[in-house]
Amino acid sequence: MLSTPKPLLYQEIADRLAALIRQGTYPPGARVPSVRQTSEHQDVSISTVLQAYSLLESRGLIEARPQSGYYVRRQLVERLREPEMSAAGRDPSLVSVHELTMMLLDDAVNPKLVQLGAALPNPQLLPVKKLNRIMANQMRQHAAEAHQYLFPPGLESLRTQIAQRAALSGCSLPPDGIVITSGGVEAIDIALHAVCRPGDIVATESPMYFGTLQALEVQGLRALEIPTHPRDGMSIEALAFALEHNAIRAVLVISNFNNPLGSMIPDDKKRELVGLLNRYDVPLIENDVSGEIYFGDKRPQTCKAFDTRGSVMLCSSFSKDISAGIRIGWIAAGRKHAEAAWLKQTLSACSPSLPQMVVAEFLEGGGYDQHLRRIRREYARNVELLSDAVLRYFPSDVRLTRPSGGFVLWVGLPEKVDSLELYKMAHAGGITIAPGYVFSPTQQFPNFIRLNAAEFSYATERAMERLGGMIGELAAAQP
Amino acid sequence: MLSTPKPLLYQEIADRLAALIRQGTYPPGARVPSVRQTSEHQDVSISTVLQAYSLLESRGLIEARPQSGYYVRRQLVERLREPEMSAAGRDPSLVSVHELTMMLLDDAVNPKLVQLGAALPNPQLLPVKKLNRIMANQMRQHAAEAHQYLFPPGLESLRTQIAQRAALSGCSLPPDGIVITSGGVEAIDIALHAVCRPGDIVATESPMYFGTLQALEVQGLRALEIPTHPRDGMSIEALAFALEHNAIRAVLVISNFNNPLGSMIPDDKKRELVGLLNRYDVPLIENDVSGEIYFGDKRPQTCKAFDTRGSVMLCSSFSKDISAGIRIGWIAAGRKHAEAAWLKQTLSACSPSLPQMVVAEFLEGGGYDQHLRRIRREYARNVELLSDAVLRYFPSDVRLTRPSGGFVLWVGLPEKVDSLELYKMAHAGGITIAPGYVFSPTQQFPNFIRLNAAEFSYATERAMERLGGMIGELAAAQP
Repeated sequence: MLSTPKPLLYQEIADRLAALIRQGTYPPGARVPSVRQTSEHQDVSISTVLQAYSLLESRGLIEARPQSGYYVRRQLVERLREPEMSAAGRDPSLVSVHELTMMLLDDAVNPKLVQLGAALPNPQLLPVKKLNRIMANQMRQHAAEAHQYLFPPGLESLRTQIAQRAALSGCSLPPDGIVITSGGVEAIDIALHAVCRPGDIVATESPMYFGTLQALEVQGLRALEIPTHPRDGMSIEALAFALEHNAIRAVLVISNFNNPLGSMIPDDKKRELVGLLNRYDVPLIENDVSGEIYFGDKRPQTCKAFDTRGSVMLCSSFSKDISAGIRIGWIAAGRKHAEAAWLKQTLSACSPSLPQMVVAEFLEGGGYDQHLRRIRREYARNVELLSDAVLRYFPSDVRLTRPSGGFVLWVGLPEKVDSLELYKMAHAGGITIAPGYVFSPTQQFPNFIRLNAAEFSYATERAMERLGGMIGELAAAQP
Repeated sequence: MLSTPKPLLYQEIADRLAALIRQGTYPPGARVPSVRQTSEHQDVSISTVLQAYSLLESRGLIEARPQSGYYVRRQLVERLREPEMSAAGRDPSLVSVHELTMMLLDDAVNPKLVQLGAALPNPQLLPVKKLNRIMANQMRQHAAEAHQYLFPPGLESLRTQIAQRAALSGCSLPPDGIVITSGGVEAIDIALHAVCRPGDIVATESPMYFGTLQALEVQGLRALEIPTHPRDGMSIEALAFALEHNAIRAVLVISNFNNPLGSMIPDDKKRELVGLLNRYDVPLIENDVSGEIYFGDKRPQTCKAFDTRGSVMLCSSFSKDISAGIRIGWIAAGRKHAEAAWLKQTLSACSPSLPQMVVAEFLEGGGYDQHLRRIRREYARNVELLSDAVLRYFPSDVRLTRPSGGFVLWVGLPEKVDSLELYKMAHAGGITIAPGYVFSPTQQFPNFIRLNAAEFSYATERAMERLGGMIGELAAAQP
């Protein structure tokens, strides 16, 4: 069992200042309040402030300049190298990673563990109160309808709202071309069913979210891993080569903020990707579940926005930004819309009625945009905090991604470090992480781990420190 | 558009008396109140009562005995023959019935149609108020948890409640052997995935619920139709023969109240079935979604109750008795439990959280038993009313099932009548029915229809009358 003692006074002061630094009150290079100022304003002793500042120094957040004071350090994370472009998977592979993924989900509901494993959204960043207020209202207004079937394609007002939001990012979806699903996972299942038969080859990014690999496994499909850049996503060049030499039935990408890379296919490359696939008449399955959680200035486009033939199947959900427990996702399957509606009916009849009403209402008048602005800011900050912790506590030769959205980090550990060993060691120490094995059917990433950066707390900081120690230990161990 | 005018006074009086007859206040053979008594007690004219009694006579519910009064007629429905045992399907067949089933579901949400098609529960027989009260409470108590993932196997308190109910009917299920699913449909999908690979043969009852046939289709499985008795379900003898001569990978039955037959495999035959399958080491997938809606004295057992090896996968849901829109089902997969949990995770990550809490709470303290007693009575009555309407309005050579539970009827029409023709004709006339084609991959039932008996109203009565006319017309048409 993990113990998370109450932080001491100097730790609290350090954390408070760290937060101000993260949110830009004190940007890189700025001078932070002097020891004396802090002592006076916060009514603590000089020696406590010195302790706090020393902690921040050791965390690499500030630096002392002689005769001048303390300053925020610049661009810390760029000192770490990014991972390289991933290698091509060898042969198309039947996928099997299930024992490990079941362990990860067991961990995810274990309150004794510091949660750096499963990519759960931060519970504090879900609009719980608003959703529950809407739910109470909808229940009153639609008492009986809430308990009747809402057959595919699902609630019309919800599909209309989804189409309207898609339009904002330049993507034209008719409400009648959307099918409501049980989360993004079912949407991907439906897309695969719609275009693949058992034994078919599906080209994917590498690394790739394990849920997707499992969807391939269940349907008896083979994954062909395409080299993937840690910032720009799937290599279009490598994919072009693969299309020429393999009977690829479909391509599956998380175009905006691949899980675990946080990569984003640049919008012009998206257009190129769609064009390439059109030449080979291969459908694209696009997973956009994190698309709204971008850290840049504007919503990146989806590949679907460049789809002129109805051959891109756009899949998404509200699990990351509105509610994980409400289980509402959707698919805009283009030419395969009728097939998708039939598949939804066949796989789970329909999605629950009340949750559809609640999400529709939230999208229509619940302040979704304001909510999104807030969580984008918070997730960007937490990703930065966790990145800094990697820099501080992990060996200096680790590699670290620089996500442009979402809330996960992908860390390349020294080659000697086996991520499954580390997983076990961490688990015994009250921490859960996601070992690299689950992100590739050909186990290309034995020394990588994915970290969930959705929350950053004092417990996270301490967990990262201990994790760093374990990594050092494993790296130093005699073979 | 169908017009459903307000019933006239004499019709109301007739309906009221008919209801009393159905619920046994006036059992077959009993004398009903005299014309004069009714006139006095209900404060209507003698001539209105005479009109009402004449209507009941024409409906075949009562008969006048000279000098004595009016009496409830006996055993009306038994004048119609039951369907025969179904024939064996020829070769194991790849299934495809989708256009038709999509039409049926479109019809199901079309308020202009009299709903005799899709097997929807009667909205008036769902405990809507109670569920919504519980939902409001749960939302207050678990405001945040409602929006977090509840990973497979799902909410523990719900699994415990399900296990406790199963125990009442003699079936021992550990809560840890149950996985919560998105309705019964997903439970069946999971069971099939757990034991079959594409191309495998699954033996099923015939006729069989089209949703099951579609689940086979999606997974590339072949259905082998086993002769099925309209009251006793799948023929064990025929199945034994089939097991000897075919590489059957799994057997799938709706043991209690097959849809569309309403048949029930007698409990001793269930034991025999499980024993037979054990000898061939073939798993049984048992769909028990209507098991609680029995018309007899006690809950029939499930095959699972006789399972000593963990080879029966029991699938059920609360869609028929508690809420269709809440989408909560479950599977007790025996030896395949771990596989089932993994499959649930892979197919839709998890089921929505709040609905799981609500069903758990309703089962624990919501008066489930009392509710079930009520709906059993109502469905039994509505099935009887619809059966009587078949007797009154359909040609006398139709065949009709005598369901022992559930709320559907299966009607064999004269051979000349094509059920798809009738479907189209009925649809044009504002009525939807389920044509026999969707219940067999080898289209064994072209002249059968399934009728949903969940509701019986004045509009139903009139629709049955018109349907009878159409059947007569099609039967009389020159070829």
